[in-house]
Amino acid sequence: MRIVVLAGGIGGARFLRGLKQAAPDADITVIGNTGDDIHLFGLKVCPDLDTVMYTLGGGIHEEQGWGRAGETFAVKEELAAYGVGPEWFGLGDRDVATHIVRTQMLGAGYPLSAVTEALCKRWEPGVRLLPMTDDRVETHVVVDTGEGRKAVHFQEYWVGLRAEPTAHAVVPVGAEQAAPAPGVLEAVAAADVVLFPPSNPVVSIGTILAVPGVREAIADAGVPVVGLSPLIGGAPVRGMADKVLAAIGVESTAAAVAAHYGSGLLDGWLVDASDAEAVPEVERVGIRCRAVPLLMSDTAATAAMARAALELAEEVRA
Amino acid sequence: MRIVVLAGGIGGARFLRGLKQAAPDADITVIGNTGDDIHLFGLKVCPDLDTVMYTLGGGIHEEQGWGRAGETFAVKEELAAYGVGPEWFGLGDRDVATHIVRTQMLGAGYPLSAVTEALCKRWEPGVRLLPMTDDRVETHVVVDTGEGRKAVHFQEYWVGLRAEPTAHAVVPVGAEQAAPAPGVLEAVAAADVVLFPPSNPVVSIGTILAVPGVREAIADAGVPVVGLSPLIGGAPVRGMADKVLAAIGVESTAAAVAAHYGSGLLDGWLVDASDAEAVPEVERVGIRCRAVPLLMSDTAATAAMARAALELAEEVRA
Repeated sequence: MRIVVLAGGIGGARFLRGLKQAAPDADITVIGNTGDDIHLFGLKVCPDLDTVMYTLGGGIHEEQGWGRAGETFAVKEELAAYGVGPEWFGLGDRDVATHIVRTQMLGAGYPLSAVTEALCKRWEPGVRLLPMTDDRVETHVVVDTGEGRKAVHFQEYWVGLRAEPTAHAVVPVGAEQAAPAPGVLEAVAAADVVLFPPSNPVVSIGTILAVPGVREAIADAGVPVVGLSPLIGGAPVRGMADKVLAAIGVESTAAAVAAHYGSGLLDGWLVDASDAEAVPEVERVGIRCRAVPLLMSDTAATAAMARAALELAEEVRA
Repeated sequence: MRIVVLAGGIGGARFLRGLKQAAPDADITVIGNTGDDIHLFGLKVCPDLDTVMYTLGGGIHEEQGWGRAGETFAVKEELAAYGVGPEWFGLGDRDVATHIVRTQMLGAGYPLSAVTEALCKRWEPGVRLLPMTDDRVETHVVVDTGEGRKAVHFQEYWVGLRAEPTAHAVVPVGAEQAAPAPGVLEAVAAADVVLFPPSNPVVSIGTILAVPGVREAIADAGVPVVGLSPLIGGAPVRGMADKVLAAIGVESTAAAVAAHYGSGLLDGWLVDASDAEAVPEVERVGIRCRAVPLLMSDTAATAAMARAALELAEEVRA
């Protein structure tokens, strides 16, 4: 079975770990969000791709969900001693090596997809990890500041400002001019099923879908497309998805997110068992819906979620 | 008193520490060798400038003589895990931050002299540290390999190959097209004395003198130029200066090095007390010479050497 998964960072990475357990023989291609990418200290940082790579490759800081296990911060401390910021970015020493290798390869002319493949040779994530695009796309968020509104890089909004200022718009800068990375459309066309993990529907999956051709390829693939709600009981399980949903005028409920994707894209949708009352609402807009436990408390629980998603996909197909 | 010092790495840096103690009120300008500079992992590394900056700024690894005190090597270990080398270069985590700041500033268009000044704002070395040039100069060494002769970067020869292959030539690639950095010729013209520390006469001081205009400015400054022998008893105190002296056909003795600089450039020369028999030989070629203890065993001993050099300068002047 060929499964294509659109993934952001922590939520996507943890879901993938469950999916690998649930479908050990599946051929999994991950289309990773690169809208979070940022140039920091002259280095190219790809937080979502790295989170997937480290999580599936056994290098992730488990409790934190991002960054490396056993990480140290000498480089960051020294940069601060030179007065070079931003200080809000958690740049670990081990992580720096990944960014150095990536930056050096990009500088030598390799596209991000080739760089990602090279980095994955070390991590052996057990999936094929593709960036959504080799082109530069950067998600910017329009926020209120003391001196009026301004657009800041998503990382500054999310990490630096902890999503506290009101977000008025989320713009994947460069997405309109971007092309899907080599292999992305081919993987979608060859897929037996497409899954949307409980990743952020705006700045993770939404950004991937904003790359011209990706949404259309998924809608036209003629295979089941099943998503899992990142919201439980009207709130994100992790992160601050509600803030960016508000910015694009979508209510923070499992049903509203399903309707936002729409029945033209989504065939099936899983909501948490505690959100069972949303099922008829989702089915009314033409999306098959089931309520199952959606807390990724451990890999076994996550594998059960992945199985439920694959079962729903088979139901849709039949 | 305005003192100009031509400095390489460890020897130059330690001498400068002694000089600062010997002449606390002097205005010291250091012209640093950049022929050892190397691009590694996409980062611009300036080993000699950093050794001077860290040593005078209190950040040096004292026993080792180069690199940072309390250094860790997470970045290097991770690069090795990615299969990215060279592994022979001792790239510490703290050191990486310096290279990141430098590389980022150079990428933003600042010349190396401005970058060095910015880095020194943190380290406050108590001297004005100027790179010999803002242009790219890289010392290459022609060595014997299994498959004939080839030119390798000085760092690869010195650190990677531990100066073991026979060196046939030392070439400061790019020096002929290089211009002295802003302030270099002005500092020489305004100097009351010019000192050559016991640095490598070929790949440190020799490279600085290879930048067009520098040798001439020193020779024409009309002020005493005094050097200290890096060789004691026919062998380098530290490092492998004898190897590169052989490559340029200069005998590894204190007298031969003085003659190599020549009386057109050098007015005074200090040899070690154990090399007293060299004094008449040096004076025969027109360079005033004294024998004093030249082992930089601690800062007090080094300060005594610096005082002896300044005294010899005054003797020359009178």
